[in-house]
Amino acid sequence: MSLVVMKFGGSSVGTPERMKRVAERIIEKQKAGDRVVVVVSAMGDTTDDLIDQSKQLNPNPPAREMDMLLTTGEQISIALLSMTIHGLGHKAISFTGWQAGIVTEAVHGKARIQDIDPKRIFEALDQGNIVIVAGFQGMTEAGDITTLGRGGSDTTAVALAAAIEADVCEIYTDVDGIYSTDPRVVPNARKLDEISYDEMLELAHLGAAVLHPRAVEYAKHYNVKLVVRSSFTHNEGTSVKEEANMEQGVAVRGIAFDKNVARISILGVADVPGVLASVFGALAQNGIDVDIIVQSGVQDGKADFSFTVSLDDRAKALEVIESIRSQVPYREVTSEDNLVKISIVGAGMVSNPGVAAQMFATISSLGVSIKMVSTSEIRLSCIIQAEPLHEVVRALHTAYGLDTADQAFVGGPKERR
Amino acid sequence: MSLVVMKFGGSSVGTPERMKRVAERIIEKQKAGDRVVVVVSAMGDTTDDLIDQSKQLNPNPPAREMDMLLTTGEQISIALLSMTIHGLGHKAISFTGWQAGIVTEAVHGKARIQDIDPKRIFEALDQGNIVIVAGFQGMTEAGDITTLGRGGSDTTAVALAAAIEADVCEIYTDVDGIYSTDPRVVPNARKLDEISYDEMLELAHLGAAVLHPRAVEYAKHYNVKLVVRSSFTHNEGTSVKEEANMEQGVAVRGIAFDKNVARISILGVADVPGVLASVFGALAQNGIDVDIIVQSGVQDGKADFSFTVSLDDRAKALEVIESIRSQVPYREVTSEDNLVKISIVGAGMVSNPGVAAQMFATISSLGVSIKMVSTSEIRLSCIIQAEPLHEVVRALHTAYGLDTADQAFVGGPKERR
Repeated sequence: MSLVVMKFGGSSVGTPERMKRVAERIIEKQKAGDRVVVVVSAMGDTTDDLIDQSKQLNPNPPAREMDMLLTTGEQISIALLSMTIHGLGHKAISFTGWQAGIVTEAVHGKARIQDIDPKRIFEALDQGNIVIVAGFQGMTEAGDITTLGRGGSDTTAVALAAAIEADVCEIYTDVDGIYSTDPRVVPNARKLDEISYDEMLELAHLGAAVLHPRAVEYAKHYNVKLVVRSSFTHNEGTSVKEEANMEQGVAVRGIAFDKNVARISILGVADVPGVLASVFGALAQNGIDVDIIVQSGVQDGKADFSFTVSLDDRAKALEVIESIRSQVPYREVTSEDNLVKISIVGAGMVSNPGVAAQMFATISSLGVSIKMVSTSEIRLSCIIQAEPLHEVVRALHTAYGLDTADQAFVGGPKERR
Repeated sequence: MSLVVMKFGGSSVGTPERMKRVAERIIEKQKAGDRVVVVVSAMGDTTDDLIDQSKQLNPNPPAREMDMLLTTGEQISIALLSMTIHGLGHKAISFTGWQAGIVTEAVHGKARIQDIDPKRIFEALDQGNIVIVAGFQGMTEAGDITTLGRGGSDTTAVALAAAIEADVCEIYTDVDGIYSTDPRVVPNARKLDEISYDEMLELAHLGAAVLHPRAVEYAKHYNVKLVVRSSFTHNEGTSVKEEANMEQGVAVRGIAFDKNVARISILGVADVPGVLASVFGALAQNGIDVDIIVQSGVQDGKADFSFTVSLDDRAKALEVIESIRSQVPYREVTSEDNLVKISIVGAGMVSNPGVAAQMFATISSLGVSIKMVSTSEIRLSCIIQAEPLHEVVRALHTAYGLDTADQAFVGGPKERR
C-alpha cells in the first residue's frame, strides 16, 4: 500500500465534467489500494475573476487582504471536489491550508512554507478518507492566511509529500509530461521518461510552465519523487528524480526557449570599481530581474556592458539607468527586442566539452548571429535574433540526437498555480 | 468613545458601488470617534451561486463540505470590504469567523455559537483598525469550519456585540426599520422608534424578515441594544431593547401576516392517550415544523384535530400521516391552503382583555371567518381565508390605533443572512 499525493491544477477541475473525471481518477487510485492525499488549485478563471473584483474596489489592495480573498478560490475547489467524491459513494474530507497544518512565514502573496504538522491528515487517512487539501495557501504562526505565490499548489503538493513521506507526488496537468522541447515547434519532440531535479530546475526557470521551480527545489531538497502526467489520459508521464538515466552518448536532455527577453547595453562607462554594483543595485531596488550579463573588454578606461531583462521590464529599466546617470556616467544606452533566449539543458553536458561548440556551429549554419552567451554546469543559453527561431530549435533538436533518443521541455497552456 | 458593531447584509454590499457606500458609512462612524467592528454577509447572490455549483456535482452534499463551500462567500466580502476601506485611506483588517475567535458546537449547517474569544479583535482595534468579521461562520473546537444557518450574520453581530460589550449593535438593511405592518399593504404603516425584544421575537418568528429570531434571542439574553436601520439613508431606525415605550392606550405594537401556511385536519381519531404524541412525533422526525394545533371536542370516543404547517411541507406531512395510519387509525384527513395567518403583537396586550374580542369583531365585520386561533402572552394569531387579506390588515391597523400611534412589521425584500 503506497501513500500518494496527487495534485490537480485549475484547468483540470475547471468544469463540472472535469471535476467529476478528476474525482473518478482519485477514487481509482484509492481502489488500487493506495492512501491518497489530493492537492487542488482554484477552478479555471476563479483567481482572475477575484483579482478583477478587487481591482474595481482598490487598484492597489493590501497583500494581507488579497491573500484573504484569493484563498477562497482553493477553498471552493476542495469543498466541491470532496462533495463530488461523496456523490460517487466514497469518503473524502477537505482541509484548508491551515487545517492541513501548513505554517508559512509571515509574508503575504509569496510566503514560504516553514513547517507542516500532518496530524489531521493522518487521522483522516486512518478513517478511510481521501484527504483533499487546498493548494497555494497556509497560515502564519499568528493565525493570518497567506498564499505561496505562483506555482504555489505545486509547492503545497511537494511539501505535503515530504511531510507525510509519500511514496510519490504526482502532478496532473494538461500535458502528458516533460518534452524534449515544445512539440508545437518540433514535431519530433519526445516525451521524457525521466529527468533529474537539476535539469528540471533549469527548464522550469527557462519558462517550462508545467512545474514551478520552487516546487522542484523542494522536491530536490526533500528527495520527493515527482511524476508529471496528464489529467486526461493514463499515459505514463515523466519522472523527476535525483539521477535520471541518459541515453548513451546523448549529453543534452532538452531544449527550451523564451521570447520574453530584451537586451540593454550601456556603452562607454568609466571602468572604476563599484560601477556594476551601482547599476544592478539600482535595478534590483526597482524590482527588475536581470538575467544574462556580459561585459566586453575595457578600452581607454571605458567599458561596454550588456544585460537582458524581461520585455515587460525594458522601459522601466531604461528609466532607472537614466536616473543614475549622475552617479554612473556613460556615453550611451541602447536596447533591443525581437530576441529569443535559446537554451540546451542536460546533466551530461559537464563531461562533453564539444557540446557548446556544436550549439554555436548549428546556430551559425542557419545564418543566425549569437548576441550573448551564458552557461551553467548543465545549461548553455544563447541570445539570438527571434527569427528563424523554429528552424534553430529543430536543427538543435536533431544535432543533439533528440529526435530519436530520450528527451525535455514543455508545450501546452500554462497552468497558473 | 463608543464601541459599535455594524452589520451589513448581502444586498448592502451586492455591487462595487454599494460596497463603496458601505465603506464610507463605516469610515464616517469611525471618524465620529467610535471604535468600529463590522460584520458582513456574502455579497448578493454569491451563496445561491455556490449552492447551484454544488448541486451540479452532488445533489445531496455532506453538510461539512457545504459549510466549507459557503463560508467562502463571507470571506470574499470581508476581504473586498477591507480593501475598499484601505483604498479610501483608512486602516482595516478582516477576520474569518475562526480568526475572530468564534467557537461553535460541532454541528454543520446550523451550529450555535458556544464561545467568542475577542482577543484578536481588541488587538486590532487598539492598533486603530476598523475590524471586519465574516458573518454566518465559526469553527468547532476540533478546527472544522461551521455555519450558523439562516440569519447567521445577524447572530454573529449580536454575539460579537455581547462578547466585546459593545454599546450598540446596528443592523443595516434595505428598509428604514421595523414597521407597524407591511407598508406595501397599509399605506399608513409607520416606522416604530422602539420595540421590545419579546415583541420583536414574535414578529421575527411570524416572518418579519429584517431580524432573525435567533439574533433577537441572543440580544435579549445578553441585553445587547439593537438598532435596525437603513444602509441607504441616515434615518434613525428602530431600537430593539428590553422595555419599549408604548403610546398611551395602545396595546398592539404591530400586525404581521404570513401566507406560507396550510391547514391539515385529521378526523375521527380514536381518543386514546399518546395519539397526539404519535402524530407530532412522526412529523418532527421528518423535519416538519407544526405551528398552530387545535383539538375539537370528543364525540363517541373519536376526536378531530387540526394543525398548520408551511405550504412547502404540506405534501410531505400528508405522506407521513398516511404512513402511520396503522398505528393511529383515523377516519379521514383533509387539508386546505389559500390561507393566511394574521397576528397582532404587543406587550400591552396582557393587561387589555378586550384586545382579542376586538380582533375577532374586526375580522368578522368584513365577512371573513376565523378557522383557527392561537395565542401567547403578547400575541394573538388567527388563521383566516387568504382574501381579502389587505382589507383585514388595514382594518386591524386602524382598529388598534396604529394609523396614528407608534407601531411594527416589516416590508422590503428579505435579506438572506
